[in-house]
Amino acid sequence: MAKNLTPRKSDYSRWYNDLVIQADLADNSGVRGCMIIKPYGFAIWEKIQAELDHRFKETGHVNAYFPLFIPKSHFSKEADHVEGFAKECAVVTHYRLKNNPDGPGIVVDETAKLEEELIVRPTSETIIWDTYKKWVQSYRDLPILVNQWANVVRWEMRTRLFLRTSEFLWQEGHTAHATENEAIFEAKQMLDVYGDFVEEHMAIPVVRGTKSSNERFAGALETYCIETLMQDGKALQAGTSHFLGQNFAKAFDVKFQDKNGEMNYVWGTSWGVSTRLMGALIMTHSDDNGLVLPPKLAPTQVVIIPIYRGEEELLKLDAVVKGLLEKLKKIGIRVKYDNRDTYKPGWKFNEYELKGVPVRIAIGPRDLEKGTVEVARRDNLSKESVKLEMLDSHIESLLNEIQEQLFIKSKVSLEDNIHIVDNWNSFKLALDKGGFVSAHWDGTPETENKIKELTKATIRCIPLNNEKKDGLCILTGNPSSERVLFARAY
Amino acid sequence: MAKNLTPRKSDYSRWYNDLVIQADLADNSGVRGCMIIKPYGFAIWEKIQAELDHRFKETGHVNAYFPLFIPKSHFSKEADHVEGFAKECAVVTHYRLKNNPDGPGIVVDETAKLEEELIVRPTSETIIWDTYKKWVQSYRDLPILVNQWANVVRWEMRTRLFLRTSEFLWQEGHTAHATENEAIFEAKQMLDVYGDFVEEHMAIPVVRGTKSSNERFAGALETYCIETLMQDGKALQAGTSHFLGQNFAKAFDVKFQDKNGEMNYVWGTSWGVSTRLMGALIMTHSDDNGLVLPPKLAPTQVVIIPIYRGEEELLKLDAVVKGLLEKLKKIGIRVKYDNRDTYKPGWKFNEYELKGVPVRIAIGPRDLEKGTVEVARRDNLSKESVKLEMLDSHIESLLNEIQEQLFIKSKVSLEDNIHIVDNWNSFKLALDKGGFVSAHWDGTPETENKIKELTKATIRCIPLNNEKKDGLCILTGNPSSERVLFARAY
Repeated sequence: MAKNLTPRKSDYSRWYNDLVIQADLADNSGVRGCMIIKPYGFAIWEKIQAELDHRFKETGHVNAYFPLFIPKSHFSKEADHVEGFAKECAVVTHYRLKNNPDGPGIVVDETAKLEEELIVRPTSETIIWDTYKKWVQSYRDLPILVNQWANVVRWEMRTRLFLRTSEFLWQEGHTAHATENEAIFEAKQMLDVYGDFVEEHMAIPVVRGTKSSNERFAGALETYCIETLMQDGKALQAGTSHFLGQNFAKAFDVKFQDKNGEMNYVWGTSWGVSTRLMGALIMTHSDDNGLVLPPKLAPTQVVIIPIYRGEEELLKLDAVVKGLLEKLKKIGIRVKYDNRDTYKPGWKFNEYELKGVPVRIAIGPRDLEKGTVEVARRDNLSKESVKLEMLDSHIESLLNEIQEQLFIKSKVSLEDNIHIVDNWNSFKLALDKGGFVSAHWDGTPETENKIKELTKATIRCIPLNNEKKDGLCILTGNPSSERVLFARAY
Repeated sequence: MAKNLTPRKSDYSRWYNDLVIQADLADNSGVRGCMIIKPYGFAIWEKIQAELDHRFKETGHVNAYFPLFIPKSHFSKEADHVEGFAKECAVVTHYRLKNNPDGPGIVVDETAKLEEELIVRPTSETIIWDTYKKWVQSYRDLPILVNQWANVVRWEMRTRLFLRTSEFLWQEGHTAHATENEAIFEAKQMLDVYGDFVEEHMAIPVVRGTKSSNERFAGALETYCIETLMQDGKALQAGTSHFLGQNFAKAFDVKFQDKNGEMNYVWGTSWGVSTRLMGALIMTHSDDNGLVLPPKLAPTQVVIIPIYRGEEELLKLDAVVKGLLEKLKKIGIRVKYDNRDTYKPGWKFNEYELKGVPVRIAIGPRDLEKGTVEVARRDNLSKESVKLEMLDSHIESLLNEIQEQLFIKSKVSLEDNIHIVDNWNSFKLALDKGGFVSAHWDGTPETENKIKELTKATIRCIPLNNEKKDGLCILTGNPSSERVLFARAY
């Protein structure tokens, strides 16, 4: 067990914070609610970005960049949106500082007050739709399939590294279409891009569904989402894709001339995932020894550590490892050889365990004699002896196996933690046990609010392809046509 | 000539603006001084980013992310730095809006005033050095070789797309070292990374040099720079790399224990290039017909346009082009087939000329009979007939040739425009002609200021490996030990 890592059982939340900081993923900054993403954490985020960006481009999207600042008046244009977003945000009111006339330091220059305040974007629908008005005249200008990688700011009172920070990194797709069907197709397609990525690359199983009206994005007609379950039984929303209808087109007057010469409002979608995914990644796989990373996202997939006494032994090992490195790199494996003399093997073992490197290879003089190395898996901590000549193919299939097993393990855990209940008492008990609770709900926001008030649980989603089966609402006993998934959530 | 593009001779500045907008590179936003980088412009920026990022990693750097906001007090810690940066900047003073109690819309909630104002980063030295204090204890923690890709804001009164905008995108490297020599080596190394990239990938020749104290980065002991020359004879600073000495380490108290157990301040560098490079790219190569892109940075390197009458002819061409596309993609060429029926070939020719696609292939039924296609170069507008079976190897070498020739052409132009002068009158005449003026200067900030006042020219750089040769200052007649490069600049 890692020395200073709080065990999950004693305090899951502290374990998480300890791990993020000790594994060098991120740190709190001196700026309230803003995090510093450290190089190791950022290297993982870069892998997430690269693969998502690839998948966005494969589905026809292009990247662009829109301003950080949004004029205050833009927010008032879409009524629901302003309620949802414009309140807790960073407001720029001045554009100059000056030397303090009454003492040391610098102060705001009151003569440099902006005529209209600027909001640091909490999301970019308004500024982007204000732009699309200029981009769209005819059906030939559609669809617009644009994505942006950016930082956004939402003033949060209680923050947690990666999970909830005032500034975070994300991507936001904003598309415009000629027809309603095309926009709905897009919103669903992007949900699947997210779902497939999270399952295949992050090895995190998801439930795909839609949000209830309470939890819907401010300004959307439908919010599709992928929901995941953490080890402590709390749910985490990993990504959302919104069908915006014509709401933003109407708010910003974005019309196009169709093939028949008629003017119509454009149909829109928006979709996003953020550095929050890092939180999901950490909490899904890691253990009391530290981080566990799926091979596809691990900056270092394999670390080789020499076990030696004296420089002579090390030089011998260096020579052998050189060939190994070449072999492994050749087949695309991200491998690192840590032959630093400033740290002992035991320290290195702990370090790479803490950092979640999927495979550790230890090699010493006795191994050389036998023509083998010791291969250790981070996920299940098992070890085996592997012949040198078979190492590259062995490692390749081992990495695939680890990726797959991490997913299967989480998938089994997710399925084991969907509890079907039919009365209020079992509902409350199931919530306390943790996990998703599948229950009937009468479909009203009032009931959802009441349940939230009583239990702190919200409807995480109405699963897509849900079985339509009549029942009675868990709280009110009113009729319901399908079960939904409740949970306490991050 | 492109229809609405102002010719360079009649108004270079308007030509630039027209081109940026008409080639779909960027646009002004409704937010003062903030630009929208459109998908085509962003695709070029992504190529710049990817190659630079690769070169940073090859030289041992890693990426990280630091907060957008910097507490006001951080800026006061480095005396020169505050003078240089903290004045014209966006200041966040509040963190909440509320419904206007006196009417429609939303207003700033005065009860949500920040205790300390936050500055939207104009550059990140202060917040990063405040962090390095926590990261560095021993010589083992050094060097820190960190880069950040980020948006920054400097409140500009007069803005121009890409060249000077209030918000822009950039990368900023911030490194910390145990010794002065190591830090100087790093600053010089990064200058070469920039210089090599700009010359090899952007086909823009540069002069590498150091800044005079007037033009030095606020807080640096030495600023290395690469300087380029635009077609209108004005200079443009394309990148800078700063040796910070121990200034920021002292301001933020960043010390380390060296191998002998002694505590020392850390040595630092910082270095950056920005979306300004896009401006340099556009202005160096383009002409009155539109953009000219070096093949290495062109999102589309080759466009194939079918010349046909009727669907039957098109189908035949489609079949042939399918094979061509495969062949070209196989050897890594970014090729696009534009067989849209909604636009005529002439329109397409103009469009891709305006957008700077390096090579255009036109193919029609008569070409098919002859087994040839027409290949047109964007850079020199020449055309030739090429046999189909040789097309892939021909295009491959043609793209290399274009890349090389663009560089040679600009290099010749740069060298032709360095004017060596020895008296004040020729100095003024040379400046009016445009280009760099190589002249003696007495080394004082006062003289440089005076020259700037009289001519609007500044010292762009003191070239590295400059010939040391005595002379007399162009303005004061005082002794000088080497020539420096003056120019009017962007």
